[in-house]
Amino acid sequence: MREIILADNAGFCFGVSRAVKEAFTLGEKGKKVFTFGELIHNRDVVEKLKDSNVEVLENDPGEALKKDDTVIIRSHGLSEENVKKLKASSDNVVDLTCPYVSNIHRIVREHADLGYTVVILGDKNHPEVMGINGWCYNKAIIVRNGSEDFRVPLKVCAVAQTTEKLENWVSLITRLSAEAKEIRAFNTICAATGLRQNSTEELSKKVEAMVVIGGKHSSNTTKLYEISRNNCINTYFVENAEELKQYTEELKKYSRIGVTAGASTPDWIIKEAIELL
Amino acid sequence: MREIILADNAGFCFGVSRAVKEAFTLGEKGKKVFTFGELIHNRDVVEKLKDSNVEVLENDPGEALKKDDTVIIRSHGLSEENVKKLKASSDNVVDLTCPYVSNIHRIVREHADLGYTVVILGDKNHPEVMGINGWCYNKAIIVRNGSEDFRVPLKVCAVAQTTEKLENWVSLITRLSAEAKEIRAFNTICAATGLRQNSTEELSKKVEAMVVIGGKHSSNTTKLYEISRNNCINTYFVENAEELKQYTEELKKYSRIGVTAGASTPDWIIKEAIELL
Repeated sequence: MREIILADNAGFCFGVSRAVKEAFTLGEKGKKVFTFGELIHNRDVVEKLKDSNVEVLENDPGEALKKDDTVIIRSHGLSEENVKKLKASSDNVVDLTCPYVSNIHRIVREHADLGYTVVILGDKNHPEVMGINGWCYNKAIIVRNGSEDFRVPLKVCAVAQTTEKLENWVSLITRLSAEAKEIRAFNTICAATGLRQNSTEELSKKVEAMVVIGGKHSSNTTKLYEISRNNCINTYFVENAEELKQYTEELKKYSRIGVTAGASTPDWIIKEAIELL
Repeated sequence: MREIILADNAGFCFGVSRAVKEAFTLGEKGKKVFTFGELIHNRDVVEKLKDSNVEVLENDPGEALKKDDTVIIRSHGLSEENVKKLKASSDNVVDLTCPYVSNIHRIVREHADLGYTVVILGDKNHPEVMGINGWCYNKAIIVRNGSEDFRVPLKVCAVAQTTEKLENWVSLITRLSAEAKEIRAFNTICAATGLRQNSTEELSKKVEAMVVIGGKHSSNTTKLYEISRNNCINTYFVENAEELKQYTEELKKYSRIGVTAGASTPDWIIKEAIELL
């Protein structure tokens, strides 16, 4: 008998769930709806949204938008500059920035204005981080774990991408504490992320193989993969059930398989993968 | 030929230097002068002050003081409660709290009032730490390096005794970063302390023996001794030249001897010790 165990806290977090639901609702109203960038890092969801009249706007909004088009700011958030651009192009901007991310925007702006140098722990190419940096005048120092070669400011305000690993945060703050005179450190790692990572960590120690479901561009899913791979050498990273098919033969030799999924993986995809296994 | 090397930054720091100078000046005016507790952790200085009309008040000021006596708040600072007691007993309270310590008082009061739990890195029995704690309503958590068993608050304000070691500070902030949601960390270790420690560290690596001069109750001198002892097994901890005499025979075998001194060791004592060597 084969056992498939789904990790606790797998899948959509609060902010993503809210954004996806709202986007489908807006699309179903019939008017043209755009999201500025893919709504979430999940191709299947993006495809389904397209079927529901919600399209992706990749470039400068000024080019494509008409004033009465609806345009969605996704849960990752946007820089102040881009929010302004959207509002100049459309009268119907729907801000679905995750409230936890908006809170980071508020923190970095306030501290930049108070004279603190902002340090963001995260991926400098990730839209969430680019958005946050925009709110502190694009002057933040962006680091992966604090071990980088950078000059620690005397007065520093530290925040983290919501999907960061706690160990990177601790590593950054340890570095800052040795050199800064004053630190204001806001651990903005989302609780959902931490819980999801803990559940994945625990589950990956108890099974013979792990399947991690999520977009390859998804920061939080990649971290789940790393955590799982650390404990369980047979960890498979797939985007959906379709992609999992190539491994089903290989997976047959395991009797206990764990499944987890990133914040941008909808329940239907998790369900399909489990059924396939 | 024998070499005696004095460490850079040895001896009085700014706050202590100011307090000692002012106390002698007040004593020489002829009126009765008291210090609330020994002015500095150095018996020779305390004796010299006595000769200059400056006495130590150990107990409740209400008992001993007359309204027109002058009473000095020493550089370590005092709790708000004790400041009030002194002011109720004397009309001539001279506050010689080190301005760096007063700054810590301001920080902990402000943050206690803002709802942060204050964590003080330091020795809970040291007058500086007791004074600081008084300014945050005696509600601070007092730790030696953060590895203790205590509940890390969600919102925490951390400060350090001015004479702390940087490694203990880093250790505390690392611990806090793993568990707190928001940290405001003020590295209040006095620059003089750090410089003195670095100079002692460097010197103790280059000599055959080290002499550390300072009071046995002096927190910062004890730390100098520990740092020196780590690099140089032949480290001697003495309070003055008189105490050094017992080791002069033993010290004759070394041709390179380093000398350092704590923040409460006056220049004349350092000079005497060097002359003896």
